[in-house]
Amino acid sequence: MSLPELYTRFVLIDRPTTFAGDNVYRKEVLPLSNLKPGPGQALVKTLWLSLDPAMRAWMDDRPNFLPPIQIGETVRSLGVGVVLELGPDCSFKVGDLIMGFIGLRDFGIIDEATTDVIRKESYHSHTEGVVPEDYLGPMGIPGLAAYFGLYDIAHLKAGQTLVVTAAAGATGSMVCQLGKQAGAKVVAIAGTDEKCAWLRDDLGCDVVLNYKSPTFQADFEKDVDRFDIFFDNVAGPVLNYMMTRLRPNSVIVLSGFISQMNKEKPEGLTNYVRMVGMRARMEAFIITDYRERWAEGREVIAKGLADGSLKRRFEVVEGLENVPRVYNRLFSGENKGKL
Amino acid sequence: MSLPELYTRFVLIDRPTTFAGDNVYRKEVLPLSNLKPGPGQALVKTLWLSLDPAMRAWMDDRPNFLPPIQIGETVRSLGVGVVLELGPDCSFKVGDLIMGFIGLRDFGIIDEATTDVIRKESYHSHTEGVVPEDYLGPMGIPGLAAYFGLYDIAHLKAGQTLVVTAAAGATGSMVCQLGKQAGAKVVAIAGTDEKCAWLRDDLGCDVVLNYKSPTFQADFEKDVDRFDIFFDNVAGPVLNYMMTRLRPNSVIVLSGFISQMNKEKPEGLTNYVRMVGMRARMEAFIITDYRERWAEGREVIAKGLADGSLKRRFEVVEGLENVPRVYNRLFSGENKGKL
Repeated sequence: MSLPELYTRFVLIDRPTTFAGDNVYRKEVLPLSNLKPGPGQALVKTLWLSLDPAMRAWMDDRPNFLPPIQIGETVRSLGVGVVLELGPDCSFKVGDLIMGFIGLRDFGIIDEATTDVIRKESYHSHTEGVVPEDYLGPMGIPGLAAYFGLYDIAHLKAGQTLVVTAAAGATGSMVCQLGKQAGAKVVAIAGTDEKCAWLRDDLGCDVVLNYKSPTFQADFEKDVDRFDIFFDNVAGPVLNYMMTRLRPNSVIVLSGFISQMNKEKPEGLTNYVRMVGMRARMEAFIITDYRERWAEGREVIAKGLADGSLKRRFEVVEGLENVPRVYNRLFSGENKGKL
Repeated sequence: MSLPELYTRFVLIDRPTTFAGDNVYRKEVLPLSNLKPGPGQALVKTLWLSLDPAMRAWMDDRPNFLPPIQIGETVRSLGVGVVLELGPDCSFKVGDLIMGFIGLRDFGIIDEATTDVIRKESYHSHTEGVVPEDYLGPMGIPGLAAYFGLYDIAHLKAGQTLVVTAAAGATGSMVCQLGKQAGAKVVAIAGTDEKCAWLRDDLGCDVVLNYKSPTFQADFEKDVDRFDIFFDNVAGPVLNYMMTRLRPNSVIVLSGFISQMNKEKPEGLTNYVRMVGMRARMEAFIITDYRERWAEGREVIAKGLADGSLKRRFEVVEGLENVPRVYNRLFSGENKGKL
């Protein structure tokens, strides 16, 4: 492969107070020869980048499971890339496909310790039907969050009522489908009719509700009433409402909070005291804590992708320069499938 | 024992919107001969009644682990009493001391299934130093809530930082002392200087803070900074603040919500989204779910009461007719010790 002389990256130049607009990114074009992998590192060429709500959280100067992105640093993002060059003591091979924190750049340096080699022998039996970009969706953080959130945090059992927000999203759609496979009554909540139709017709969710409908709460009470598990990717007013629909011992999996990320003034939860009388549990988790068990989740998910029982959608936007323009589709709900 | 002809009870006549004032109770004097124990029931004479925040929650017409108190029913409350007469198939003995839902009355009918015989053989080794009213405090629901909340919900370990609200209360004071015994750094939060002095001087808490102090948050950040376990009996603004002081994997034990019970408009939690980045867990529990293991907790607590390593305070008000007048001391913080 002949390499270009320059690479492009986006660095953070300001912390957003609401949406991450053009003002927070600066595009830089730099000599590729600057990128020299150190010990345990590798130089990679980006194939796909994942745009995730978590990136917005990392732009805040606030403790998190990863440190905030510093001003002047490349904006952190996950991606799939191919290894071009190895630093000392890096066990990857040139040509390996990897999934890791490449960041918003077309060439990057990744750390072996936080990077995943994909298509190892252990996945070979499943890779028919699995494409590399699946490692940013069902086979990556979103799909694994669905799997470990449902089984390890919520202890999902057949016959339970499972409510899912951002149900058409990369995580939500896997939650819905894994929930159906486990014999749950799946209640999918999304924000557009197009997404609702996909959830109903293609994914087979039992109840599908548009939270923007004026009859949303009445519909919920009629068709669902109460839940055992709420897998919440959204937070905000829908979470607050759901706290009035708890069953005894119900679990709220706090997976994401996309509705609250760009608010200067967050919307308060007022119904959380209902959790006491219902001995409810609300729990967050970080999917990287489960790294040693990812293979277990991928085994299940890859099988579903290969036999067609698990479906996913991608929205692919070509060109690194389009990232600042399309990133906020995640928050407006315009994207159709994993961005 | 010669019995009177009449007994007195307080029934619920209206649902409170804020504080349970005089308008929610009606005193009734009725023939004692009306009280006939049915199958599995017993007639008891009240010795002590426990005034608890939970009674206020049961006055609301809202799903809970126990059904709401119906209008016209005796106000539900726990008490210690002595068995006078047995219904069919009741395994208690006349003269047994019991702890159960007697309700606000001087004589009552209790159900064997939800009532606890106290001073059985299994407790005899510990009962020096234990008095019957302890079964409404450290040996009862409040103390057992402290024990199972700390060990089963929070998984307390030595060296952790444990924050406790309503720390001078019946539950909170046991949490502080069990926490110290387990080797935690105990941070006690209360609302009067008198309570703070007791927590510091008599119970030996490591840090004691009055949440009404104008420097409360600054003091917390200086003396504590962040916590592993927050045993919260209060909810509201202090809970919201504590959500900014989470350590990774921290646990919030949602034991009570005394600050929010009498609010028409609850104060919203706005910082809960911080739980996601800290993979935190917030969990409620119902102490009656642990009934089969109460003996385990009582063993530990009775030992501490007997050897003087666990201290408790009672505020005893004589006379059933005083209940409506003194009940709200629980919410104003005027009571000193278990009411």
